[in-house]
Amino acid sequence: MAGYSLSRDDYLKRLRLIEGQVRGLQRMVSEDKYCIDILTQVSSVKQALQGVAVGLLDEHVRHCVMDAAAKGDDSKVGEATAAIERLLRS
Amino acid sequence: MAGYSLSRDDYLKRLRLIEGQVRGLQRMVSEDKYCIDILTQVSSVKQALQGVAVGLLDEHVRHCVMDAAAKGDDSKVGEATAAIERLLRS
Amino acid sequence: MAGYSLSRDDYLKRLRLIEGQVRGLQRMVSEDKYCIDILTQVSSVKQALQGVAVGLLDEHVRHCVMDAAAKGDDSKVGEATAAIERLLRS
Amino acid sequence: MAGYSLSRDDYLKRLRLIEGQVRGLQRMVSEDKYCIDILTQVSSVKQALQGVAVGLLDEHVRHCVMDAAAKGDDSKVGEATAAIERLLRS
Repeated sequence: MAGYSLSRDDYLKRLRLIEGQVRGLQRMVSEDKYCIDILTQVSSVKQALQGVAVGLLDEHVRHCVMDAAAKGDDSKVGEATAAIERLLRS
Repeated sequence: MAGYSLSRDDYLKRLRLIEGQVRGLQRMVSEDKYCIDILTQVSSVKQALQGVAVGLLDEHVRHCVMDAAAKGDDSKVGEATAAIERLLRS
Repeated sequence: MAGYSLSRDDYLKRLRLIEGQVRGLQRMVSEDKYCIDILTQVSSVKQALQGVAVGLLDEHVRHCVMDAAAKGDDSKVGEATAAIERLLRS
Repeated sequence: MAGYSLSRDDYLKRLRLIEGQVRGLQRMVSEDKYCIDILTQVSSVKQALQGVAVGLLDEHVRHCVMDAAAKGDDSKVGEATAAIERLLRS
Protein backbone atom coordinates (compact mmCIF):
# COMPACT_ATOMS: atom_id res chain seq x y z
CA MET A 1 0.00 0.00 0.00
CA ALA A 2 1.44 3.32 -1.03
CA GLY A 3 1.59 6.36 1.22
CA TYR A 4 -0.98 8.03 -1.00
CA SER A 5 -3.76 5.55 -0.55
CA LEU A 6 -6.33 6.20 2.14
CA SER A 7 -9.27 4.19 3.37
CA ARG A 8 -12.77 5.41 2.52
CA ASP A 9 -13.12 6.60 6.13
CA ASP A 10 -9.97 8.68 5.81
CA TYR A 11 -11.36 10.36 2.70
CA LEU A 12 -14.62 11.08 4.49
CA LYS A 13 -12.76 12.48 7.49
CA ARG A 14 -10.72 14.76 5.24
CA LEU A 15 -13.78 15.91 3.31
CA ARG A 16 -15.61 16.72 6.55
CA LEU A 17 -12.61 18.82 7.62
CA ILE A 18 -12.74 20.60 4.25
CA GLU A 19 -16.47 21.22 4.71
CA GLY A 20 -15.68 22.77 8.10
CA GLN A 21 -13.01 24.96 6.50
CA VAL A 22 -15.51 26.17 3.89
CA ARG A 23 -17.96 27.04 6.66
CA GLY A 24 -15.09 28.86 8.37
CA LEU A 25 -14.63 30.87 5.18
CA GLN A 26 -18.31 31.88 5.27
CA ARG A 27 -17.87 33.05 8.86
CA MET A 28 -14.76 35.03 7.93
CA VAL A 29 -16.62 36.77 5.09
CA SER A 30 -19.68 37.51 7.29
CA GLU A 31 -17.46 38.98 10.00
CA ASP A 32 -15.54 41.08 7.48
CA LYS A 33 -12.24 39.46 8.34
CA TYR A 34 -9.05 40.71 6.71
CA CYS A 35 -8.93 39.75 3.02
CA ILE A 36 -5.43 38.30 3.15
CA ASP A 37 -6.43 35.97 6.00
CA ILE A 38 -9.39 34.74 3.97
CA LEU A 39 -7.12 34.16 0.97
CA THR A 40 -4.68 32.18 3.12
CA GLN A 41 -7.57 29.98 4.22
CA VAL A 42 -8.71 29.53 0.59
CA SER A 43 -5.20 28.34 -0.34
CA SER A 44 -5.30 25.88 2.51
CA VAL A 45 -8.68 24.47 1.39
CA LYS A 46 -7.39 24.14 -2.18
CA GLN A 47 -4.37 22.24 -0.91
CA ALA A 48 -6.53 19.93 1.21
CA LEU A 49 -8.69 19.17 -1.85
CA GLN A 50 -5.55 18.50 -3.85
CA GLY A 51 -4.48 15.97 -1.24
CA VAL A 52 -7.79 14.15 -1.60
CA ALA A 53 -7.51 14.21 -5.40
CA VAL A 54 -3.95 12.88 -5.45
CA GLY A 55 -4.91 10.03 -3.12
CA LEU A 56 -7.93 9.09 -5.22
CA LEU A 57 -5.88 9.26 -8.41
CA ASP A 58 -3.18 7.00 -7.01
CA GLU A 59 -5.76 4.44 -5.99
CA HIS A 60 -7.57 4.72 -9.31
CA VAL A 61 -4.39 4.00 -11.30
CA ARG A 62 -3.39 1.25 -8.86
CA HIS A 63 -6.72 -0.52 -9.22
CA CYS A 64 -9.07 0.39 -12.08
CA VAL A 65 -6.42 1.35 -14.64
CA MET A 66 -4.23 -1.66 -13.83
CA ASP A 67 -7.12 -4.12 -13.77
CA ALA A 68 -8.33 -2.90 -17.13
CA ALA A 69 -4.80 -3.14 -18.51
CA ALA A 70 -4.43 -6.69 -17.26
CA LYS A 71 -7.45 -7.49 -19.48
CA GLY A 72 -5.78 -5.79 -22.45
CA ASP A 73 -7.89 -2.64 -22.16
CA ASP A 74 -5.85 0.56 -21.95
CA SER A 75 -8.79 2.91 -22.52
CA LYS A 76 -8.70 3.92 -18.86
CA VAL A 77 -5.31 5.62 -19.22
CA GLY A 78 -6.56 8.43 -21.43
CA GLU A 79 -9.47 8.95 -19.08
CA ALA A 80 -7.09 9.27 -16.11
CA THR A 81 -4.84 11.64 -18.07
CA ALA A 82 -7.82 13.85 -18.87
CA ALA A 83 -8.69 13.95 -15.15
CA ILE A 84 -5.11 14.98 -14.32
CA GLU A 85 -5.30 17.71 -16.95
CA ARG A 86 -8.50 19.07 -15.38
CA LEU A 87 -6.86 19.11 -11.96
CA LEU A 88 -3.83 20.95 -13.34
CA ARG A 89 -6.05 23.64 -14.82
CA SER A 90 -8.17 24.08 -11.72
CA MET B 1 -16.94 48.40 -10.03
CA ALA B 2 -14.90 45.77 -11.83
CA GLY B 3 -16.30 42.52 -13.15
CA TYR B 4 -14.34 40.64 -10.48
CA SER B 5 -15.82 42.39 -7.49
CA LEU B 6 -18.77 40.80 -5.75
CA SER B 7 -20.88 41.90 -2.86
CA ARG B 8 -20.48 40.16 0.49
CA ASP B 9 -23.75 38.33 -0.17
CA ASP B 10 -22.44 37.04 -3.48
CA TYR B 11 -19.37 35.64 -1.76
CA LEU B 12 -21.53 33.97 0.87
CA LYS B 13 -23.79 32.53 -1.81
CA ARG B 14 -20.78 31.11 -3.66
CA LEU B 15 -19.25 29.70 -0.50
CA ARG B 16 -22.53 27.99 0.41
CA LEU B 17 -22.58 26.40 -3.05
CA ILE B 18 -19.01 25.23 -2.48
CA GLU B 19 -20.01 23.79 0.90
CA GLY B 20 -22.79 21.88 -0.86
CA GLN B 21 -20.31 20.60 -3.44
CA VAL B 22 -18.01 19.34 -0.68
CA ARG B 23 -20.95 17.54 0.93
CA GLY B 24 -21.69 16.09 -2.51
CA LEU B 25 -18.12 14.78 -2.59
CA GLN B 26 -18.68 13.03 0.75
CA ARG B 27 -21.81 11.40 -0.64
CA MET B 28 -19.92 10.29 -3.76
CA VAL B 29 -17.19 8.71 -1.65
CA SER B 30 -19.71 6.98 0.69
CA GLU B 31 -21.61 5.60 -2.28
CA ASP B 32 -18.39 4.38 -3.91
CA LYS B 33 -18.95 6.47 -7.01
CA TYR B 34 -16.55 6.19 -9.93
CA CYS B 35 -13.18 7.77 -9.06
CA ILE B 36 -12.95 9.87 -12.21
CA ASP B 37 -16.35 11.43 -11.50
CA ILE B 38 -15.21 12.35 -7.99
CA LEU B 39 -12.01 13.87 -9.42
CA THR B 40 -14.03 15.93 -11.90
CA GLN B 41 -16.08 17.28 -8.99
CA VAL B 42 -12.89 18.08 -7.01
CA SER B 43 -11.59 20.09 -10.00
CA SER B 44 -14.86 21.97 -10.12
CA VAL B 45 -14.71 22.82 -6.39
CA LYS B 46 -11.11 24.01 -6.77
CA GLN B 47 -12.15 26.24 -9.65
CA ALA B 48 -15.06 27.68 -7.66
CA LEU B 49 -12.69 28.46 -4.77
CA GLN B 50 -10.32 30.08 -7.24
CA GLY B 51 -13.12 32.32 -8.43
CA VAL B 52 -13.79 33.45 -4.86
CA ALA B 53 -10.07 34.07 -4.29
CA VAL B 54 -9.64 36.10 -7.49
CA GLY B 55 -12.64 38.27 -6.60
CA LEU B 56 -11.37 38.90 -3.07
CA LEU B 57 -7.90 39.69 -4.35
CA ASP B 58 -9.21 42.21 -6.90
CA GLU B 59 -11.19 43.96 -4.22
CA HIS B 60 -8.28 43.90 -1.80
CA VAL B 61 -5.94 45.56 -4.29
CA ARG B 62 -8.66 48.01 -5.34
CA HIS B 63 -9.31 49.11 -1.75
CA CYS B 64 -6.80 48.23 0.97
CA VAL B 65 -3.66 48.26 -1.17
CA MET B 66 -4.64 51.48 -2.96
CA ASP B 67 -5.75 53.26 0.21
CA ALA B 68 -2.50 52.39 1.93
CA ALA B 69 -0.56 53.57 -1.13
CA ALA B 70 -2.43 56.86 -1.16
CA LYS B 71 -1.02 57.39 2.35
CA GLY B 72 2.48 56.59 1.14
CA ASP B 73 2.46 53.07 2.56
CA ASP B 74 3.31 50.36 0.05
CA SER B 75 3.80 47.59 2.60
CA LYS B 76 0.52 46.01 1.53
CA VAL B 77 1.85 45.15 -1.93
CA GLY B 78 4.33 42.54 -0.68
CA GLU B 79 1.61 41.05 1.49
CA ALA B 80 -0.71 40.72 -1.52
CA THR B 81 2.07 39.23 -3.63
CA ALA B 82 2.73 36.62 -0.95
CA ALA B 83 -0.98 35.72 -0.96
CA ILE B 84 -0.89 35.32 -4.75
CA GLU B 85 2.16 33.09 -4.44
CA ARG B 86 0.36 30.85 -1.93
CA LEU B 87 -2.63 30.58 -4.29
CA LEU B 88 -0.36 29.67 -7.19
CA ARG B 89 1.23 26.84 -5.18
CA SER B 90 -2.08 25.46 -3.89
CA MET C 1 -2.69 5.44 -29.38
CA ALA C 2 -4.29 8.07 -27.19
CA GLY C 3 -4.68 11.68 -28.17
CA TYR C 4 -2.14 12.62 -25.52
CA SER C 5 0.74 10.58 -26.82
CA LEU C 6 3.25 12.25 -29.08
CA SER C 7 6.27 10.97 -30.91
CA ARG C 8 9.70 11.94 -29.64
CA ASP C 9 9.98 14.35 -32.57
CA ASP C 10 6.74 16.04 -31.57
CA TYR C 11 8.07 16.56 -28.04
CA LEU C 12 11.30 18.01 -29.40
CA LYS C 13 9.37 20.32 -31.71
CA ARG C 14 7.24 21.56 -28.82
CA LEU C 15 10.25 22.05 -26.57
CA ARG C 16 12.03 24.04 -29.27
CA LEU C 17 8.96 26.27 -29.56
CA ILE C 18 9.03 26.71 -25.77
CA GLU C 19 12.74 27.59 -25.94
CA GLY C 20 11.86 30.24 -28.54
CA GLN C 21 9.10 31.59 -26.28
CA VAL C 22 11.57 31.89 -23.38
CA ARG C 23 13.97 33.79 -25.63
CA GLY C 24 11.02 35.99 -26.59
CA LEU C 25 10.48 36.68 -22.88
CA GLN C 26 14.11 37.81 -22.58
CA ARG C 27 13.62 40.16 -25.51
CA MET C 28 10.44 41.56 -23.95
CA VAL C 29 12.23 42.22 -20.65
CA SER C 30 15.23 43.84 -22.40
CA GLU C 31 12.95 46.08 -24.43
CA ASP C 32 10.96 47.05 -21.32
CA LYS C 33 7.71 45.71 -22.73
CA TYR C 34 4.49 46.16 -20.79
CA CYS C 35 4.42 43.93 -17.69
CA ILE C 36 0.99 42.47 -18.39
CA ASP C 37 2.07 41.37 -21.88
CA ILE C 38 5.10 39.62 -20.42
CA LEU C 39 2.87 37.90 -17.83
CA THR C 40 0.51 36.72 -20.58
CA GLN C 41 3.48 35.19 -22.37
CA VAL C 42 4.68 33.52 -19.14
CA SER C 43 1.22 31.93 -18.73
CA SER C 44 1.39 30.66 -22.29
CA VAL C 45 4.84 29.10 -21.74
CA LYS C 46 3.61 27.44 -18.54
CA GLN C 47 0.66 26.01 -20.42
CA ALA C 48 2.87 24.71 -23.22
CA LEU C 49 5.10 22.99 -20.64
CA GLN C 50 2.01 21.52 -19.02
CA GLY C 51 1.01 20.05 -22.38
CA VAL C 52 4.39 18.36 -22.69
CA ALA C 53 4.15 17.04 -19.12
CA VAL C 54 0.64 15.64 -19.58
CA GLY C 55 1.70 13.87 -22.79
CA LEU C 56 4.78 12.35 -21.14
CA LEU C 57 2.76 11.28 -18.13
CA ASP C 58 0.12 9.56 -20.28
CA GLU C 59 2.81 7.67 -22.13
CA HIS C 60 4.62 6.78 -18.93
CA VAL C 61 1.49 5.27 -17.35
CA ARG C 62 0.59 3.55 -20.62
CA HIS C 63 3.99 1.89 -20.92
CA CYS C 64 6.31 1.80 -17.89
CA VAL C 65 3.65 1.66 -15.19
CA MET C 66 1.57 -0.93 -17.04
CA ASP C 67 4.57 -3.11 -17.97
CA ALA C 68 5.75 -3.13 -14.37
CA ALA C 69 2.23 -3.98 -13.19
CA ALA C 70 2.02 -6.87 -15.66
CA LYS C 71 5.08 -8.28 -13.85
CA GLY C 72 3.36 -7.84 -10.49
CA ASP C 73 5.35 -4.73 -9.61
CA ASP C 74 3.18 -1.76 -8.65
CA SER C 75 6.03 0.37 -7.24
CA LYS C 76 5.84 2.62 -10.29
CA VAL C 77 2.39 3.92 -9.36
CA GLY C 78 3.55 5.79 -6.27
CA GLU C 79 6.42 7.26 -8.28
CA ALA C 80 4.01 8.53 -10.94
CA THR C 81 1.67 9.93 -8.26
CA ALA C 82 4.59 11.84 -6.70
CA ALA C 83 5.41 13.31 -10.13
CA ILE C 84 1.79 14.43 -10.56
CA GLU C 85 1.89 16.02 -7.11
CA ARG C 86 5.02 17.98 -8.03
CA LEU C 87 3.35 19.19 -11.24
CA LEU C 88 0.25 20.27 -9.30
CA ARG C 89 2.38 22.34 -6.92
CA SER C 90 4.49 23.97 -9.64
CA MET D 1 12.13 47.56 -2.30
CA ALA D 2 10.21 44.35 -1.60
CA GLY D 3 11.79 40.92 -1.54
CA TYR D 4 9.93 40.08 -4.72
CA SER D 5 11.29 42.85 -6.90
CA LEU D 6 14.27 42.11 -9.07
CA SER D 7 16.34 44.28 -11.35
CA ARG D 8 15.97 43.85 -15.09
CA ASP D 9 19.34 42.05 -15.11
CA ASP D 10 18.10 39.59 -12.50
CA TYR D 11 15.07 38.79 -14.65
CA LEU D 12 17.28 38.29 -17.69
CA LYS D 13 19.62 36.06 -15.72
CA ARG D 14 16.70 33.93 -14.52
CA LEU D 15 15.20 33.71 -17.99
CA ARG D 16 18.53 32.60 -19.42
CA LEU D 17 18.68 29.87 -16.78
CA ILE D 18 15.16 28.83 -17.77
CA GLU D 19 16.19 28.75 -21.44
CA GLY D 20 19.07 26.46 -20.45
CA GLN D 21 16.65 24.22 -18.54
CA VAL D 22 14.40 23.96 -21.59
CA ARG D 23 17.39 22.99 -23.72
CA GLY D 24 18.20 20.43 -21.02
CA LEU D 25 14.69 19.04 -21.46
CA GLN D 26 15.31 18.64 -25.19
CA ARG D 27 18.52 16.75 -24.44
CA MET D 28 16.70 14.50 -21.99
CA VAL D 29 14.01 13.69 -24.56
CA SER D 30 16.58 13.03 -27.32
CA GLU D 31 18.57 10.74 -25.04
CA ASP D 32 15.42 8.87 -23.98
CA LYS D 33 15.91 9.73 -20.33
CA TYR D 34 13.53 8.30 -17.74
CA CYS D 35 10.09 9.94 -18.00
CA ILE D 36 9.80 10.74 -14.31
CA ASP D 37 13.13 12.60 -14.38
CA ILE D 38 11.92 14.67 -17.34
CA LEU D 39 8.67 15.45 -15.47
CA THR D 40 10.64 16.55 -12.39
CA GLN D 41 12.61 18.93 -14.59
CA VAL D 42 9.38 20.26 -16.18
CA SER D 43 8.01 21.00 -12.68
CA SER D 44 11.21 22.86 -11.87
CA VAL D 45 11.00 24.99 -15.04
CA LYS D 46 7.35 25.80 -14.27
CA GLN D 47 8.33 26.88 -10.77
CA ALA D 48 11.15 29.07 -12.07
CA LEU D 49 8.72 30.75 -14.50
CA GLN D 50 6.29 31.27 -11.62
CA GLY D 51 9.04 33.04 -9.69
CA VAL D 52 9.61 35.41 -12.61
CA ALA D 53 5.87 36.05 -12.93
CA VAL D 54 5.38 36.76 -9.22
CA GLY D 55 8.28 39.22 -9.24
CA LEU D 56 6.96 41.04 -12.32
CA LEU D 57 3.46 41.16 -10.86
CA ASP D 58 4.68 42.64 -7.57
CA GLU D 59 6.57 45.33 -9.42
CA HIS D 60 3.65 46.01 -11.72
CA VAL D 61 1.25 46.56 -8.81
CA ARG D 62 3.88 48.58 -6.93
CA HIS D 63 4.45 50.91 -9.86
CA CYS D 64 1.95 50.98 -12.77
CA VAL D 65 -1.18 50.11 -10.79
CA MET D 66 -0.32 52.51 -7.94
CA ASP D 67 0.68 55.35 -10.25
CA ALA D 68 -2.56 55.03 -12.18
CA ALA D 69 -4.52 54.91 -8.92
CA ALA D 70 -2.78 58.06 -7.68
CA LYS D 71 -4.22 59.76 -10.78
CA GLY D 72 -7.69 58.41 -9.96
CA ASP D 73 -7.53 55.68 -12.58
CA ASP D 74 -8.24 52.20 -11.21
CA SER D 75 -8.63 50.51 -14.59
CA LYS D 76 -5.28 48.81 -14.13
CA VAL D 77 -6.53 46.70 -11.23
CA GLY D 78 -8.90 44.61 -13.33
CA GLU D 79 -6.15 44.12 -15.89
CA ALA D 80 -3.78 42.85 -13.19
CA THR D 81 -6.50 40.57 -11.77
CA ALA D 82 -7.06 39.07 -15.22
CA ALA D 83 -3.32 38.39 -15.52
CA ILE D 84 -3.34 36.65 -12.12
CA GLU D 85 -6.31 34.55 -13.23
CA ARG D 86 -4.43 33.45 -16.36
CA LEU D 87 -1.41 32.48 -14.26
CA LEU D 88 -3.62 30.49 -11.89
CA ARG D 89 -5.08 28.51 -14.78
CA SER D 90 -1.75 27.82 -16.48
